[in-house]
Amino acid sequence: MLLHGLDVVLVKTRFPENIGMAARACVNMGCPSLRLVDPERWDKDKAAPLATPKGLPLLDSLTVHPAVEEAVAPCALVLGTTARVGGWRRALLSPPQAGRLAAAALARGERVALVFGPEDRGLNNAEITHCQQLVTIPTDPAARSLNLAQAVLLLTYECANAARALRHARADATGTTATLVADNAGPAPDAPPRQDRPDPVPGGRAATAAEQERLMAALKDMLLRLDYLHGDNPDYFLLPWRRLFSRAGLRRHEYDALMGLCRQVRAKLG
Amino acid sequence: MLLHGLDVVLVKTRFPENIGMAARACVNMGCPSLRLVDPERWDKDKAAPLATPKGLPLLDSLTVHPAVEEAVAPCALVLGTTARVGGWRRALLSPPQAGRLAAAALARGERVALVFGPEDRGLNNAEITHCQQLVTIPTDPAARSLNLAQAVLLLTYECANAARALRHARADATGTTATLVADNAGPAPDAPPRQDRPDPVPGGRAATAAEQERLMAALKDMLLRLDYLHGDNPDYFLLPWRRLFSRAGLRRHEYDALMGLCRQVRAKLG
Repeated sequence: MLLHGLDVVLVKTRFPENIGMAARACVNMGCPSLRLVDPERWDKDKAAPLATPKGLPLLDSLTVHPAVEEAVAPCALVLGTTARVGGWRRALLSPPQAGRLAAAALARGERVALVFGPEDRGLNNAEITHCQQLVTIPTDPAARSLNLAQAVLLLTYECANAARALRHARADATGTTATLVADNAGPAPDAPPRQDRPDPVPGGRAATAAEQERLMAALKDMLLRLDYLHGDNPDYFLLPWRRLFSRAGLRRHEYDALMGLCRQVRAKLG
Repeated sequence: MLLHGLDVVLVKTRFPENIGMAARACVNMGCPSLRLVDPERWDKDKAAPLATPKGLPLLDSLTVHPAVEEAVAPCALVLGTTARVGGWRRALLSPPQAGRLAAAALARGERVALVFGPEDRGLNNAEITHCQQLVTIPTDPAARSLNLAQAVLLLTYECANAARALRHARADATGTTATLVADNAGPAPDAPPRQDRPDPVPGGRAATAAEQERLMAALKDMLLRLDYLHGDNPDYFLLPWRRLFSRAGLRRHEYDALMGLCRQVRAKLG
């Protein structure tokens, strides 16, 4: 599982249903371990329907502990969650920051705990002393209280994001090294820039500038035949079309489709 | 509210409890509007406890619509959610990418819809044709199905993150200008890098979802007249065109130009 080594620790949870939903969130995000600290009325039968079948193994394997201290004992990094900000609880991590810290520790083979307090009041000061750092989830100031399982989902999601980003960075580093060894000439010129990962890339390759020029010529011819453009300065009136296609980052198969349209209009108009 | 102009659209939701939890998630993240499309058994009394008192105003103000098309009609950007990947559903946004797109549109004063399918099966292909882009939440491959309200929380969280980042970037930019005027010494060294800014937005307003639907209908008619599309499944073959225009973020004047082209072809072919 992606988040191998991560423990989600639920402290004094009141409702077993929330533990079930948290279990489901954990398996959705690839977190393999759940620990309960002194739950108010733990009842697996009430938790199970909310966990869905996928979350059941996590309910079967969870462990129950008398105190936060014991539950987080094996962990090298312990991150507590809080909705309270200000005062001495100043140095708060954002969820992405917490995710990056956790993923880095997991990648070093360390265990990490994410600790969540009771639904109605969060972690108390004594419980927080066992946490090395605190995370807060930004919310609308008018509605700060998140459902427990929602908070679990959000933080495990950020851990999973950061873990995937680390994997990609390592794969890239390895790829670059291989190139260097092979041709001793530095990274390939078309290696993707590190910082800017995948904008959504539609399938196939991008249309080249030459193809875009051919398309503009074909469009102009078509629009003139249709009397949509007139004599004077057709290129000027083509500008908005040009901008539209360049903004979209035209793909090769779309170029083909648009050229096909131009051909078809030409054929039909004779 | 931070996400003013954002509509969360829940399609054919089965359980009112999930609508209640989704309402709570919306107010947590600062999203002020919820729309239901053909809910299976809408019951505010069942939804209310899950919404918590903070979410009640959203349950009171939500609107119910017969079809996706109608619910998203006023929106310039319509983002659908899917757990299915592969096949023609190739070009998927990640949640942060979707958040940035949505926040940029909201900052331009445009309405944005986030569309979520039924709990058990997600949006179907017909519903998806009304979405300009698709988002998927990365999950563990062994447990892909997220609770509906969890998905709503995660995507509104990413929208809120991106909206805050935009605000900071703007505040920074304003700060930079002030510095220039004050000491005439060039931009502050910690000015945010240019490329992080929103993409340059072409003039005029965005085409609404309703306009885009009219355009797709006109294009289909034109392509059928041209024998470019044939009988069987014209909507399927229109999908790449739909994606091209939505990727470009079609503007109103471009909509006018494309509708003009369709009219002209119709006139010429008689």
